[in-house]
Amino acid sequence: MNHAPRVGRVRAEMERRGIDVLLLSVGPDLPYLTGYEAMPLERLTMLVLPARGDARLVVPQLEAPRVDRGEDLFEVVPWAETDDPVDRVVGLLGGGSANPVVAIGDHTWARFVLALQAELPHAQWRRAHEVTSPVRVVKDADEIAALQAAASAVDAVAAEMRERPFAGRREIDVHRELVDRMLEHGHQRANFAIVAAAANAASPHHEPGERVIAQGDVVLCDFGGTMDGYCSDITRMFHVGPPPAEVRDAYELLEAAQEAGVRAATIGAPCSAVDAAARDVIGAGGHGEHFVHRTGHGIGTEAHEDPYMVAGNEDAIVAGHAFSVEPGIYLTGRFGMRLEDIVVATTAGPRRLNAAPRDLAVVG
Amino acid sequence: MNHAPRVGRVRAEMERRGIDVLLLSVGPDLPYLTGYEAMPLERLTMLVLPARGDARLVVPQLEAPRVDRGEDLFEVVPWAETDDPVDRVVGLLGGGSANPVVAIGDHTWARFVLALQAELPHAQWRRAHEVTSPVRVVKDADEIAALQAAASAVDAVAAEMRERPFAGRREIDVHRELVDRMLEHGHQRANFAIVAAAANAASPHHEPGERVIAQGDVVLCDFGGTMDGYCSDITRMFHVGPPPAEVRDAYELLEAAQEAGVRAATIGAPCSAVDAAARDVIGAGGHGEHFVHRTGHGIGTEAHEDPYMVAGNEDAIVAGHAFSVEPGIYLTGRFGMRLEDIVVATTAGPRRLNAAPRDLAVVG
Repeated sequence: MNHAPRVGRVRAEMERRGIDVLLLSVGPDLPYLTGYEAMPLERLTMLVLPARGDARLVVPQLEAPRVDRGEDLFEVVPWAETDDPVDRVVGLLGGGSANPVVAIGDHTWARFVLALQAELPHAQWRRAHEVTSPVRVVKDADEIAALQAAASAVDAVAAEMRERPFAGRREIDVHRELVDRMLEHGHQRANFAIVAAAANAASPHHEPGERVIAQGDVVLCDFGGTMDGYCSDITRMFHVGPPPAEVRDAYELLEAAQEAGVRAATIGAPCSAVDAAARDVIGAGGHGEHFVHRTGHGIGTEAHEDPYMVAGNEDAIVAGHAFSVEPGIYLTGRFGMRLEDIVVATTAGPRRLNAAPRDLAVVG
Repeated sequence: MNHAPRVGRVRAEMERRGIDVLLLSVGPDLPYLTGYEAMPLERLTMLVLPARGDARLVVPQLEAPRVDRGEDLFEVVPWAETDDPVDRVVGLLGGGSANPVVAIGDHTWARFVLALQAELPHAQWRRAHEVTSPVRVVKDADEIAALQAAASAVDAVAAEMRERPFAGRREIDVHRELVDRMLEHGHQRANFAIVAAAANAASPHHEPGERVIAQGDVVLCDFGGTMDGYCSDITRMFHVGPPPAEVRDAYELLEAAQEAGVRAATIGAPCSAVDAAARDVIGAGGHGEHFVHRTGHGIGTEAHEDPYMVAGNEDAIVAGHAFSVEPGIYLTGRFGMRLEDIVVATTAGPRRLNAAPRDLAVVG
């Protein structure tokens, strides 16, 4: 991956928006721009990227050996255990305006934001999102290939699960299996693996637990991870034994809603149209009140990023947008279901990256 | 775990320090105080805890079913997909001062800090650390038992690794094994597992990679996770085949330094004394310049927390402090080593929680 063009595009956004310096710490912007990921620890790592002039990476001395200087994107400024890293960052801003406009990485820890604000009382503070999101949101061919590879890996896991036993195992056991299989299929990191049986599936972000999966249970599996820097995210539904009519009917509606959402993802349409298309189908089927979340989120180096497929987001879809389409139906105390694929907007129409079978898999 | 007394102690700190309201999102403070952990996502979860009056948890509607209301510590305020959660938080502050003193969780994402600051331009912003750290830093008997259980679990893993083959395997393979074994031994989460062979071990935070471990390599394994809410962290050293004299000698020095650090951890001594004790031994052995990091960090619900065993920290050790003692010797381009146990300060003297053999294990 050649990072220099990305840095150039972000700098152009900084010029356009009057931002003097970008400060990046933990979170996806730093690896997106440089290939280096800050450790989420109390020792501060921070890239100081001025709109013009040299970039510096302030990094704990003991992590400096991890930094790959190969692309020569920044100078490394290591700090020792008894130094104050915030002083080092502030010192690197010294040459510019006394009232700098500073954009700071969205995930930067509050403790460092407050410490920087105390040292720079006249600075204006803005979100890095302003200058990184417009660049990150449009995926190029290499990025789409990376998202495709990650999607194919979780497709393989989803397909394998159709042949696996569910009854008698705890949710947490299936969770562990999903994590292991994602790693086996080339992911470096499993980010999440929701396994929710029966009534637990009515909680969209259920935490897998001790519940033993039983005959007659619907089981929701929503899992994803990171492979070569890009994220996967898929939801498939399983049923232990033949599903009753009510579940079959709801699932048929869900499939139609997901298909409608995908088809609505055409270039020039507002992001909200994808949400509306899926929601209309579920509403017409009488389950409108049971679809309690947005239809999708962007995906790239971050599991959830722009663009969001949600009511009120009137941003137009452009070629290279990558996002989930994942409507759900949740009946509190009874059961729930969700169906999710990653979709890329192309000039030839919406393209699903996931190809695993989408039917309600009957398992043992 | 009964959380109400913790909330009471934090509120007493808030009164003492003139803090009107505490805002907690992602990070360890929220689960420490309530048992509920915020998901690290773009949808804001935030506890609004005034010094006096009722606490509220602002939570995404789709995560509300995950919230256990059992202890009745707060009211749940769910927000729907098209609501603005920052407005909800600000609305809950409405009754108080126009210039509130707000303490915000140390790990809160910058994007939410900036959004809150924009809505509350006259507030004073402080770190939650001010009021949570004095409470969290002293572990009670239940917490020490939890840390002991987590330590014993990684002790078992460390002991098992002495019987395992290393030669011919990649660092990443041993990393995977450590993760699996931590989970098998009862951890819910593996937080890290550094495996660094030969010259890689000279980089204290080396990322395990494709390097194949070979005869004659020293191998550093530093791993830890979370078990029932409390963290483990241990470092043990392995050598593939008999170690040469230089490695043996350095390791002997390291063991003596670690022992000196542990013995210095007596009640009333400054935290810096633990660092100095370990550093003096390594310095006297001629490796002072090769010990490039502090000697230790506190541990509890967070892997690194107060108190830090570092030069300059003159805070006195008190009974119930729990922390690592982990000196290291790093010879760039050649090899490195570290030895780490978790120690609790007690009225009967320092007590190691880890009991796995501390010698340089010779493996195949």
